[in-house]
Amino acid sequence: MSINIPRGTQDILPGEVETWQLIEDAAKRLCRLYQYQEIRTPIFEHTELFSRGVGDSTDIVQKEMYTFEDRGGRSITLRPEGTAAVVRAFVEKKMFGNPDQPVKLYYMGPMFRYERPQAGRFRQFVQFGVEALGSNDPAIDAEVISLAMNLYGELGLKKLKLVLNSLGDPESRKAHRDALVSHFKPRIGEFCGDCQNRLEKNPLRILDCKKDRDHELMKTAPSIIEYLNEGSRDYFEKVKEYLGQLGISFEVDPKLVRGLDYYNHTAFEIMSDAEGFGAITTLCGGGRYNGLAEEIGGPETPGIGFAMSIERFIAALEAEKVSLPVEKKIDCYLVSLGDRAKDYTVGLLQELRKLGVSAERDYLGRKLKAQFKAADRLNARFVAVLGEDELDKGVINLKNMETGDQEEVELASFVEKFREQQG
Amino acid sequence: MSINIPRGTQDILPGEVETWQLIEDAAKRLCRLYQYQEIRTPIFEHTELFSRGVGDSTDIVQKEMYTFEDRGGRSITLRPEGTAAVVRAFVEKKMFGNPDQPVKLYYMGPMFRYERPQAGRFRQFVQFGVEALGSNDPAIDAEVISLAMNLYGELGLKKLKLVLNSLGDPESRKAHRDALVSHFKPRIGEFCGDCQNRLEKNPLRILDCKKDRDHELMKTAPSIIEYLNEGSRDYFEKVKEYLGQLGISFEVDPKLVRGLDYYNHTAFEIMSDAEGFGAITTLCGGGRYNGLAEEIGGPETPGIGFAMSIERFIAALEAEKVSLPVEKKIDCYLVSLGDRAKDYTVGLLQELRKLGVSAERDYLGRKLKAQFKAADRLNARFVAVLGEDELDKGVINLKNMETGDQEEVELASFVEKFREQQG
Repeated sequence: MSINIPRGTQDILPGEVETWQLIEDAAKRLCRLYQYQEIRTPIFEHTELFSRGVGDSTDIVQKEMYTFEDRGGRSITLRPEGTAAVVRAFVEKKMFGNPDQPVKLYYMGPMFRYERPQAGRFRQFVQFGVEALGSNDPAIDAEVISLAMNLYGELGLKKLKLVLNSLGDPESRKAHRDALVSHFKPRIGEFCGDCQNRLEKNPLRILDCKKDRDHELMKTAPSIIEYLNEGSRDYFEKVKEYLGQLGISFEVDPKLVRGLDYYNHTAFEIMSDAEGFGAITTLCGGGRYNGLAEEIGGPETPGIGFAMSIERFIAALEAEKVSLPVEKKIDCYLVSLGDRAKDYTVGLLQELRKLGVSAERDYLGRKLKAQFKAADRLNARFVAVLGEDELDKGVINLKNMETGDQEEVELASFVEKFREQQG
Repeated sequence: MSINIPRGTQDILPGEVETWQLIEDAAKRLCRLYQYQEIRTPIFEHTELFSRGVGDSTDIVQKEMYTFEDRGGRSITLRPEGTAAVVRAFVEKKMFGNPDQPVKLYYMGPMFRYERPQAGRFRQFVQFGVEALGSNDPAIDAEVISLAMNLYGELGLKKLKLVLNSLGDPESRKAHRDALVSHFKPRIGEFCGDCQNRLEKNPLRILDCKKDRDHELMKTAPSIIEYLNEGSRDYFEKVKEYLGQLGISFEVDPKLVRGLDYYNHTAFEIMSDAEGFGAITTLCGGGRYNGLAEEIGGPETPGIGFAMSIERFIAALEAEKVSLPVEKKIDCYLVSLGDRAKDYTVGLLQELRKLGVSAERDYLGRKLKAQFKAADRLNARFVAVLGEDELDKGVINLKNMETGDQEEVELASFVEKFREQQG
C-alpha cells in the first residue's frame, strides 16, 4: 500500500523548483541591495506567541492553527505567519540594543494554516517577508512597499494594484472603534456569530468578514480615514508623498483592514489584476505594527513589514504568461564503452567537477546510443567519448554539440583543456 | 511577560546566518556540478511514512518523533529525516518513469527530533542531503560519498574521517541476522529492555545500543563482513576501488550500522576528528536503501544517499578554526542634512538600488556625525552627502571611504556616474 502526501501540501519537483529558486534568489539579491538581512526562526513556537502576537480574535488563531502538545506537554504551534516570531526574536535576542537601527530583517520559509485546500490555498505555503523594526520614519514604510513592488516588477509582473490605507494611531483607532460599535450594535443580531463576538472584542474585524460582506451596514460603516487625528493624517500623507516620489501608484481603500490585530498607521496589499487569476488576488500584504514588540514582552518599538506568498507569486506569473529564464544545460557528458573505460570516467568526472564543470555520465550500463540520448536530454554542450582503444592510446574524443566539431584530445590534459575552452 | 523560543530550537541571526548561507550556496553549487536537482517535500507527513520508511524499531520512530493529530483527526509527524519523504515523492510522482535514471535529488531544510537538548543536538536542525534513485552501479555510491567529502573540503575542513561498511544484500543480511540471534539469545537477559525487543525484530539494532555498548558480547558479536555473499563482497570491493581512484581515504568499520532499518550494502559516516569537537563527532551519514521504495508502495528501486547536519558542519568549522569569507560591505551610504534633502534621498536610494548598488540612509533623524558613524559600521565604500545648499545647487558630495577622495557630482547624473565608478 502506498503512502500519499498530506492533504493541502505539495512536493516541489525538479522542473518547477527552478522557478522557486529564481524568485528566491531575486528576493535575496534585492534584500542585499536594500540592506535587509536574513533571520531564521523555528518552524514552531509556543502557542501563546501567536494568540498574543497575531491576535486572539483573528481567524488564523481561532480556526487555522496547527496546535499540538509536544512530548513535554507544552502547547506548540506550527507558525501560521512570520512577523510574530521575528518580533519575538528581536525582543528575546535584544536586537533593540543594536547600534544600527532600524533593524532590517527578511525571512523565507514555510508557514502553516489549516484551511480548506483550494486553488491558490495550501496548508503549507512559503512566505517571503521583511520587517523593519525601530523606525517611525514614513520613508521606511515607502521603502518596504517599494521592495515588494520592485521584486514583482523585476520578475516581469505588470498587472499589479497597490491598495493602501491608514489604520491610524491608538487614539484614532479608539475613536473609530467607538464609531463602529455605535454603527453595528443596534443591528448586530443580523450578523454572524463571529461578528457578534467581534463587536466588543475587535469591531474592526467585522469589516473583514466574508459571510456578512454584503450586509447593507457594511457599505455605510464609518471609515477610519474620517477618524484619523492630525498626527496620523500627516503620517499617511507623508507615506503617500514618498510613494509618489518613487513612481509607485496606489489606490486608497478605507476598508482595507488586514488579518492581524496589531496593525496601525500604514496597511497595504498588492493584488494581481491579471485576467483569469482566480478569486484570491492578494499577492502580498503588510503594514505597521507599532504595538507588537511591547505586546510580546519587549520595549516600545515601531515596526513595519510585509509578507508575500511564493505560491501566489508563481500563480501571478502564470496568469500573466511570464516565463522566467530557467537554464538547463550541462557542460559535459562522458560517454564510455567497455568496463575499463567506464571505470576510468569515475575519476575524470570528479576532476571536471572540481574545476567547476557540470558533468555527468551513465550509471545504468547503457549502450552507446542510449548514452548519447541521455546527453541530448541533459542538453550537454560537449560530449566526450572514451572507448578502450582511446584509453590505450591515452586520448579522448571531444565533440562540441553546438558546432558539431570533433577533436581527439590527450587524456592527460583533457580536463585542463576543457576548462580553457569553456572560458 | 515575555515569550521565549521553544526549548531545543534556535534563532539564526544576522552575523551568524551568513555562514549558513555560504555553506548552503556551496552545497547547491556542488549539486549543480554533480547534477543533483532540488526537491522540496512538506515539513510534515503522515506518521505511517516514517514508521515504515525509517523503521518501527528505530529510536527515531519509537522515542523522538513530533507526532500529533491535525484538525481532521489524521496522525501527522514533523519529518525527523529527509529520505523517507523524498522516496515517497519519487513513488507518488512516478519519477521512476523519468527517462533520466538515476533520479538525482537534493534537499535542504529543517528536521525535527524530540531529544534532550545538548551541545550539538537540537530539536529542530537543518539537514542537507542527496538521494540517487534508480541505479545499482557502485560508482554512484562513490559519487555520493565524494560529493559530501568535497563539500567539506571545499569549505576548509581537513580533519575528517570516512568510515565505511557493507551491510550486504538481503541474503547476506539474513545469514548475519541469524548469527546475531544465536550470539545474543543465550544471554539476552543481561541486556536492556530495548535490546530484548530488538532481538527478534531487528537484532542489528542491538549493535547500535548506547546503554549496552560495553557488554562483552558486543565486542565478540559476529561481523556482517564475514557473512557477505559473493555478490555483496564484489559490490563492496568496487565501491572501495572507486573511492581509491577518487583519492578518498577511508576506514572499514564492520560495526557501523546506521540508525535506519532499510540500509543495505554501502553504509558510511563522515566524522570530525578535530580536537575539542565534543562527543558527537558524526557530521554526515548515509548508505544504500534498495528496499525502501518498495516498502512504501513503489516499484523495486535501488537508492543511495546521505544527510548532513548544517549545525554540526558549523561546529566542525569552529573546532578547526576555519573562518569563511563573509563579506559585509555596502556600496553607498546617503548622508543628508535638513528635511528637504532627507526627503530627496528617498528617490536617490531607490535609483541606486535599481542599478544594483547596495545603498542605505538614515531612518532615525540622526545628526550628521551619527549618520557618518552608521556609514562606518556598515563599512560603506562611498558616502554621499546632500545638504540643502547642495540640493539648491543641484550637486552632491561623494566621498570614497577607501582613498579619502572627495568630489562634487551633478545630482542629475550622480546615479549613472556612481555605477560607472563601481565598474
